[in-house]
Amino acid sequence: MNDFTYYNPTRIEFGKNKENDISTYLEESSSKNVLIVYGSDRIKDNGLFEKVVSSLNKKNISFKELSGVVSNPLLSKVNEGIKIVKENNIDAILAVGGGSVADSAKAISAGSKYDGDVWDFFIHKSEIKETLPVYTIMTLSATASEMNGNSVIINDDTKQKYAISSVLLNPVVSVINPELMASVSKEYLAYSAVDVISHCIEVYFTASVHTAFNSRLVESIIKTIMETTEVLLENPNDYDARSEFAWAAIQGLNGLTPAGTKDGIFPNHMIEHSLSALYNVAHGAGLAVVIPAWMKWYKNNNEKQFSRFAKEIFSSDDSFAAIIKLEEWFNFIGASTTLESVNIPRSGISPLAQNASELAKVWGMGEVYTQKVIEEILEKA
Amino acid sequence: MNDFTYYNPTRIEFGKNKENDISTYLEESSSKNVLIVYGSDRIKDNGLFEKVVSSLNKKNISFKELSGVVSNPLLSKVNEGIKIVKENNIDAILAVGGGSVADSAKAISAGSKYDGDVWDFFIHKSEIKETLPVYTIMTLSATASEMNGNSVIINDDTKQKYAISSVLLNPVVSVINPELMASVSKEYLAYSAVDVISHCIEVYFTASVHTAFNSRLVESIIKTIMETTEVLLENPNDYDARSEFAWAAIQGLNGLTPAGTKDGIFPNHMIEHSLSALYNVAHGAGLAVVIPAWMKWYKNNNEKQFSRFAKEIFSSDDSFAAIIKLEEWFNFIGASTTLESVNIPRSGISPLAQNASELAKVWGMGEVYTQKVIEEILEKA
Repeated sequence: MNDFTYYNPTRIEFGKNKENDISTYLEESSSKNVLIVYGSDRIKDNGLFEKVVSSLNKKNISFKELSGVVSNPLLSKVNEGIKIVKENNIDAILAVGGGSVADSAKAISAGSKYDGDVWDFFIHKSEIKETLPVYTIMTLSATASEMNGNSVIINDDTKQKYAISSVLLNPVVSVINPELMASVSKEYLAYSAVDVISHCIEVYFTASVHTAFNSRLVESIIKTIMETTEVLLENPNDYDARSEFAWAAIQGLNGLTPAGTKDGIFPNHMIEHSLSALYNVAHGAGLAVVIPAWMKWYKNNNEKQFSRFAKEIFSSDDSFAAIIKLEEWFNFIGASTTLESVNIPRSGISPLAQNASELAKVWGMGEVYTQKVIEEILEKA
Repeated sequence: MNDFTYYNPTRIEFGKNKENDISTYLEESSSKNVLIVYGSDRIKDNGLFEKVVSSLNKKNISFKELSGVVSNPLLSKVNEGIKIVKENNIDAILAVGGGSVADSAKAISAGSKYDGDVWDFFIHKSEIKETLPVYTIMTLSATASEMNGNSVIINDDTKQKYAISSVLLNPVVSVINPELMASVSKEYLAYSAVDVISHCIEVYFTASVHTAFNSRLVESIIKTIMETTEVLLENPNDYDARSEFAWAAIQGLNGLTPAGTKDGIFPNHMIEHSLSALYNVAHGAGLAVVIPAWMKWYKNNNEKQFSRFAKEIFSSDDSFAAIIKLEEWFNFIGASTTLESVNIPRSGISPLAQNASELAKVWGMGEVYTQKVIEEILEKA
């Protein structure tokens, strides 16, 4: 087993109506003036926003709003948030939404305590040293942003989709009320399922050192996600399935699965980020395209783990057949697996590979994942 | 799924030589004067104590010592520690040892910031509100005390083995260097394996609401513990097996397995505590006696979960046969499963049951676990 540090100080408040206690949680860190970050007006139409405001009012916590976060969150919106924070003496950021909203809240938190350009953190020009406390109320489960210190943002100008990670950005408290997720569309449920599975398999397949416990943990998450996605496609109001999905999604990227493994990397995310950045493909939709192609390209590098995957997930002795089965399952739940299906023409492969190969360098995998190799992978999609 | 709060702020520093950095971790919480709590002089003989002192010296952290913690840790020793802390202005407690040492350190931490008798917390007469930071360097993996807020102590006077639990007692940092565990005797390895399995199965079998993910997590832990115990009995120096064992043991009782379940209780621990308290049986040895007897007595209350256990752990369709297989496995690794094997005569059953039924009341399960019922269970052992 490889040496590691595991530290995840986020508190999860899981269950019905917990959003009504958000001001109690904010009060614990003495927050008196928060910035509420969200996406569309959907949370105003369905009453969630009012519940939050009513909770804040009870404890005399004042607030400002930042709306309009989109599903591939933009740096321009983050900068808008940082400006509001600095001008209004905001002392905490409250994200109400999905992963994009949480990621934007974290980037705002990092930028609010920094004199330079927040993008410096994303291009590793500067290190995050101080942040504002982040809280979340999640309306979509996929990214595990609610229990990690990661934030992925697209730079509108440069079309780069880059990431930051710091335990200082871990939410202090995240509220997970599965009832708030019941209205997620079937399309986004499918993308979310693909996203969670992608978090699990990246390190599972690419690590040079595996641990039996962590492989089992990954398989437990994948089985739970597949099982509950199928239930939820039939019945979106199944509370238990929605809960299991939400909790398994969190485990997928809260730092637990890679603990003790070595050299694990995120090539599928690296490639997908270009699909999102250049074609504005939803993250999960892009991953559904990239993953089967990457698995076919990569399989022979870790036949042992692919065999294990085939056996545990699909009770199959044929590791190639298992890739096809996963691809079929993605299509079955509504996440298409070809570039064509997400409206990317063959002529798009070269610029995508060029964009991705730049991120590969930033993420330290540029030697293997050259533009040529990424083109080869995308050709399989 | 049941509502829950999950919050575990302990940082795990896992790997070789990490004990040498203990002063760096202590410095993070501005500790300048620590109490080192340990058991026998073994840590002085094998050089670990000197490594710790050398690390402290580097950062000018002074220290006092409390030695002589025994494997069923005593309240008298805890009070001795509290006295040292109060008289010497100690600002952090550093446990170097196994679960008993960590538990003693936590009780000292709680008592040091309290004007009354620390036992008040154990009998629920008072609530823990302030503590000193606790750090651990573990030399034995079993109790997961290194990543939870639990402490189990025996009151020498009343012969009660009672527990406290508070997130304020979670260690700030726990150092897990599997190399420090290589010298654990085969006997204690076996007891540790039984202890971890016991943590996993209590809620797994007794909860009225289960979750698929958490059942899978429990099964992952049990499989990993069984696998690695067998490897370590053959080769105590297998670093990877020792590491997997240590990490799985932590997952067994760090709050993750019961999240989302409902009504789970710890009847095996409740009964075993009397074996330890009245006959000074090692905790794991006592559990090996109690568990198979309890499983036979309880099985019909949750046939579904017992069938699942049989299938997942022993690939068996017969849930009673799986209990026998587990019993055989306990005996195989060296943890005997009869009262006779731990030198408790039949005449001891009645006083044991009487002692345990008192704890059952404190733990809120007195209605089911009466003296008569506990006698019935122990008769099966």
